[in-house]
Amino acid sequence: MPFGSSAAERTRIVAGFQRALADHGMVVPMATTNLFSQPIFKDGAFTANDPRVRAFALAKTLWAIDLGVELGARIYVFWGGREGTEADACRDPRTAIGRMRDALDFLCEYVRDRKYDLRFALEAKPNEPRGDIYMPTTGHMLHFISTLAHPQMVGVNPEVAHETMSGLSMAHAVAQAMEANKLFHIDLNAQRIGRYDQDFRFGSEDLRQAFLLVRLLEGTAGGARYEGPLHFDSHAYRTEDDEGVWDFARGSMRTYKILKERAQAFDADPRVRALIAERRDARLESLARGYAPHKAQALKGEVFDAAAIAREGLGYERLDQWMVEHMLGVH
Amino acid sequence: MPFGSSAAERTRIVAGFQRALADHGMVVPMATTNLFSQPIFKDGAFTANDPRVRAFALAKTLWAIDLGVELGARIYVFWGGREGTEADACRDPRTAIGRMRDALDFLCEYVRDRKYDLRFALEAKPNEPRGDIYMPTTGHMLHFISTLAHPQMVGVNPEVAHETMSGLSMAHAVAQAMEANKLFHIDLNAQRIGRYDQDFRFGSEDLRQAFLLVRLLEGTAGGARYEGPLHFDSHAYRTEDDEGVWDFARGSMRTYKILKERAQAFDADPRVRALIAERRDARLESLARGYAPHKAQALKGEVFDAAAIAREGLGYERLDQWMVEHMLGVH
Amino acid sequence: MPFGSSAAERTRIVAGFQRALADHGMVVPMATTNLFSQPIFKDGAFTANDPRVRAFALAKTLWAIDLGVELGARIYVFWGGREGTEADACRDPRTAIGRMRDALDFLCEYVRDRKYDLRFALEAKPNEPRGDIYMPTTGHMLHFISTLAHPQMVGVNPEVAHETMSGLSMAHAVAQAMEANKLFHIDLNAQRIGRYDQDFRFGSEDLRQAFLLVRLLEGTAGGARYEGPLHFDSHAYRTEDDEGVWDFARGSMRTYKILKERAQAFDADPRVRALIAERRDARLESLARGYAPHKAQALKGEVFDAAAIAREGLGYERLDQWMVEHMLGVH
Amino acid sequence: MPFGSSAAERTRIVAGFQRALADHGMVVPMATTNLFSQPIFKDGAFTANDPRVRAFALAKTLWAIDLGVELGARIYVFWGGREGTEADACRDPRTAIGRMRDALDFLCEYVRDRKYDLRFALEAKPNEPRGDIYMPTTGHMLHFISTLAHPQMVGVNPEVAHETMSGLSMAHAVAQAMEANKLFHIDLNAQRIGRYDQDFRFGSEDLRQAFLLVRLLEGTAGGARYEGPLHFDSHAYRTEDDEGVWDFARGSMRTYKILKERAQAFDADPRVRALIAERRDARLESLARGYAPHKAQALKGEVFDAAAIAREGLGYERLDQWMVEHMLGVH
Repeated sequence: MPFGSSAAERTRIVAGFQRALADHGMVVPMATTNLFSQPIFKDGAFTANDPRVRAFALAKTLWAIDLGVELGARIYVFWGGREGTEADACRDPRTAIGRMRDALDFLCEYVRDRKYDLRFALEAKPNEPRGDIYMPTTGHMLHFISTLAHPQMVGVNPEVAHETMSGLSMAHAVAQAMEANKLFHIDLNAQRIGRYDQDFRFGSEDLRQAFLLVRLLEGTAGGARYEGPLHFDSHAYRTEDDEGVWDFARGSMRTYKILKERAQAFDADPRVRALIAERRDARLESLARGYAPHKAQALKGEVFDAAAIAREGLGYERLDQWMVEHMLGVH
Repeated sequence: MPFGSSAAERTRIVAGFQRALADHGMVVPMATTNLFSQPIFKDGAFTANDPRVRAFALAKTLWAIDLGVELGARIYVFWGGREGTEADACRDPRTAIGRMRDALDFLCEYVRDRKYDLRFALEAKPNEPRGDIYMPTTGHMLHFISTLAHPQMVGVNPEVAHETMSGLSMAHAVAQAMEANKLFHIDLNAQRIGRYDQDFRFGSEDLRQAFLLVRLLEGTAGGARYEGPLHFDSHAYRTEDDEGVWDFARGSMRTYKILKERAQAFDADPRVRALIAERRDARLESLARGYAPHKAQALKGEVFDAAAIAREGLGYERLDQWMVEHMLGVH
Repeated sequence: MPFGSSAAERTRIVAGFQRALADHGMVVPMATTNLFSQPIFKDGAFTANDPRVRAFALAKTLWAIDLGVELGARIYVFWGGREGTEADACRDPRTAIGRMRDALDFLCEYVRDRKYDLRFALEAKPNEPRGDIYMPTTGHMLHFISTLAHPQMVGVNPEVAHETMSGLSMAHAVAQAMEANKLFHIDLNAQRIGRYDQDFRFGSEDLRQAFLLVRLLEGTAGGARYEGPLHFDSHAYRTEDDEGVWDFARGSMRTYKILKERAQAFDADPRVRALIAERRDARLESLARGYAPHKAQALKGEVFDAAAIAREGLGYERLDQWMVEHMLGVH
Repeated sequence: MPFGSSAAERTRIVAGFQRALADHGMVVPMATTNLFSQPIFKDGAFTANDPRVRAFALAKTLWAIDLGVELGARIYVFWGGREGTEADACRDPRTAIGRMRDALDFLCEYVRDRKYDLRFALEAKPNEPRGDIYMPTTGHMLHFISTLAHPQMVGVNPEVAHETMSGLSMAHAVAQAMEANKLFHIDLNAQRIGRYDQDFRFGSEDLRQAFLLVRLLEGTAGGARYEGPLHFDSHAYRTEDDEGVWDFARGSMRTYKILKERAQAFDADPRVRALIAERRDARLESLARGYAPHKAQALKGEVFDAAAIAREGLGYERLDQWMVEHMLGVH
């Protein structure tokens, strides 16, 4: 039996795990396969040039999916840390995308065939440990998902650190995923732009983006709320002993809760509500949405006083300062 | 009549343009609307909070599409330079995405209704002139397109500078677009990572990515070739007089041609062909592609010598050095 | 008379300015020369290849220094926005540094000769509007100053946005300047890493670095306090009318004051004081500081239990979380 | 005896090393101390808060200096990989700089006392493995050196990857060091901006900066040539076997040599020589250099036709394109 244990051993180990979970009232919300640290994955897993490596990655994932489901996981995360290149000439990137699709389509069919109650969540990262990882952001992953045979089974798992590495807005990435009903899981931590993958304590860097993210996830501004698991995927500084690691874990959760309260207070603030209330113009809105030939004609004939509209101040400095002050707890 | 001219004047101007094009044997391959420099767009165009601004942007675009089609354009580019935020609290980013979709769906229907032979190409940019622009990379745009009512009418227009600003691989972005048949147009220039939008002469920065991009577009490695327009969207240094601007224009094209020859030579080099030839393992490839229950069973039962496979050197340093030497013209 | 006015006119204009300042109880703390927007500076000012441009830049600065002194300025800022390159082959960067030194040495002598009570502050920026600006950070400027004929007359003017563009720590840069008694002036605003020069409202981005900077400037942790001018060098979003610009100006100052109070509270917090109190080991400290041969011998003979020391937790996650909570006003 | 061996053992080991060097005709040009991987350095070495750690770091360095000198090293490199912070509140950065100065001053005195023929070279890095490393660029290090008791003994060791991480120009940093006679050593490799420390094969990324760097080091444009050791501090991709590692080593050196030839050809090209020949204006140059009161007066009275000067094209697009073509071997 491959992957290191006999069937009997496996049964025993799984049962042990299940007992331990039950004893502690714990659940396994998410499972994943390590497709990056074994040296065989040095050129990638699903996208490697060697068909034996691709087959090995698939087999390893099939075994791991079974195990995840037995332990109760309903989300299965894919982070393809080695799915990229330094020597980009080694393969056409289109070939890599095609191979990734073949693998995901295969695995979706496997889950359907087995009637597992399991969805996949793809986690993007721009680089490290590879020079360039394929589909480097949540946006690229969302597009890739739209090309799969069973896109409804697959969503994304954005990570603060990974999206922030390339300097893009984590909140905008998550919003795009939520708007498409594709936010299946989320990894919360902290990161400075343009650096190695830091995985710091949530909120310890870029409080502003952290606030905007929590506000979005909690739906305090009125949009739909994220209902899935909140996962703190980070590690403590190397300066810490065991107690320090607990401080770290508590700090992540505490900051999330503080920011949630602050977001609620911000969006309940009457000044804020008034300033960002949706502006309406029933006639123009009706013309501009839902095409009809007569609407296009009417719009083309409409006379706008563009200069006058442009002169109106929008109060965004005021709004942004209120946001900063709500974050700081001064309002 | 809105947008600055009477119908008669408009007819006269269009006719003048058409004549000028005919006289010089020139064509208009692409048209676009300026939805960013007028002050009315300070909060965005299609995504602005003010419904009058959104309606104005739509009306302006309708007029401009008519004009573009009359002048022969078959591609219509959208670069939403003001579609973003600094004070992110001003709107839910999901609302912005929804508004963008409403606008694009409306415009697609207009083109269909008018039976115009026109396709849309969306151009992403991460920031500048806004703090964060919505759908900041080609990957995010590709996903957005997949959510439209008529996705087949809409593709992307990646720009070297814009993709490079966030440090992502331009070649990988273009490959993802090509793999999905969505590369409708391309903007060639040069840029250093993490800076203001530089729009330098093609090839003047990051020759490596420039080479990889040309190799991909020209299909020298065997994949499908890009057949659309090559657009040099850049500007000369401020140090130049008129002659310098012509030097600049010639340089962009010259470097493209040199890199094309180099890519052809690289991919014709027998050492390269041998090293990157697709490795085959018919049995494993057949198991791993196209799901069937028996294939999953077989894969799970397969025994791999992962350590032995991992020990095999892949020769990528050699390959990459050959690539550098082909670029340098030493081989 | 060069630079646009007769001697009589000049006298009248200066007198008008002086009266206006007196009437409003205002002072001019700082003056500067615009050596970047005139087209003549397209290749640089003090570092330009054309000796006429260098002489013009010097002459313009001499006139402007006179004017600054007449209006009461005691600090004169140099920001060499065009002192850089895109086409780096155009000159040896060492030549540029030498030219910059010639200019600064000349100007220092002028100030000494005129017995002006004036000091110079150099402001670094990594890029924009040039591809690469010479001496791109406060660190590079500090070194350059150490090579001048009168280094005591010259210090730095770090700007949050400029230091942050390259992703370096503003607080560390300012600390290096303060430690060397070279912080003569400071420009406060906000910026995200790796982007165009944003000049946002102070505190609107990267509250953490803003807090660390204020803590350092105010000396709340015990080190020397900065006593010079605090300059808010930023501009309001384009979405604002006049009222919005005032909101913006007030917001910058308000956030500074809030962070100052928070820094004071943080450094007065007994938990913080205990955790960061200087650790002492009189014997080892005496051996390690102030060389003597016997000290080196003693150190080389010292036995350390490196593993035991390494096991001690340092409590930095706790400390950092306290800092975040003090910033948020929860403690 | 500390640091792992008895005096007799040490003598034996050193003799073995010396013999091996002699047998193979090899020399040790440079030595260094590992002050980063031992867990005791988790909070820094010379800048750590614990005086025992600082003393340990100093003692370890004293031993290592002795060893380096015995093996023939004339350059001693310091890379303080752990000299930084994540939790910046843990110490005043000025304290860290002061501690670093104490350590370097002590070590300089030790070398002088021992009459070792040894110079120090400081290597900067902006981050990784710390969130922010103190004195993050070669510019900051150059300034720090100017504050030491024996600055003439200490120079810099810039590394391509480290300078490039923050997006600054490696060539400009090296030029600033050379101009100050402070380039004691150099680490050649390759890196993309804004990423983890990649240490790629020299020339494999950013050929343009590699060319500019080689041109500067080799003095092909006329400035002084760097005469010190060229050190390739990089590592092969993980995809390589032993043969691949040799390919990698050969590739680094080969690309250096090709670029050196290209730089020589570029600077010998008569078109290039003509375009970048120093422009002279003896009268203005004499006025602008070397202060005298009458020169200031003359400059202030000089009339410039700024608009006419600004209109002259500088030919930098042409120059830059020639540079690209020389790099590509087409000219």
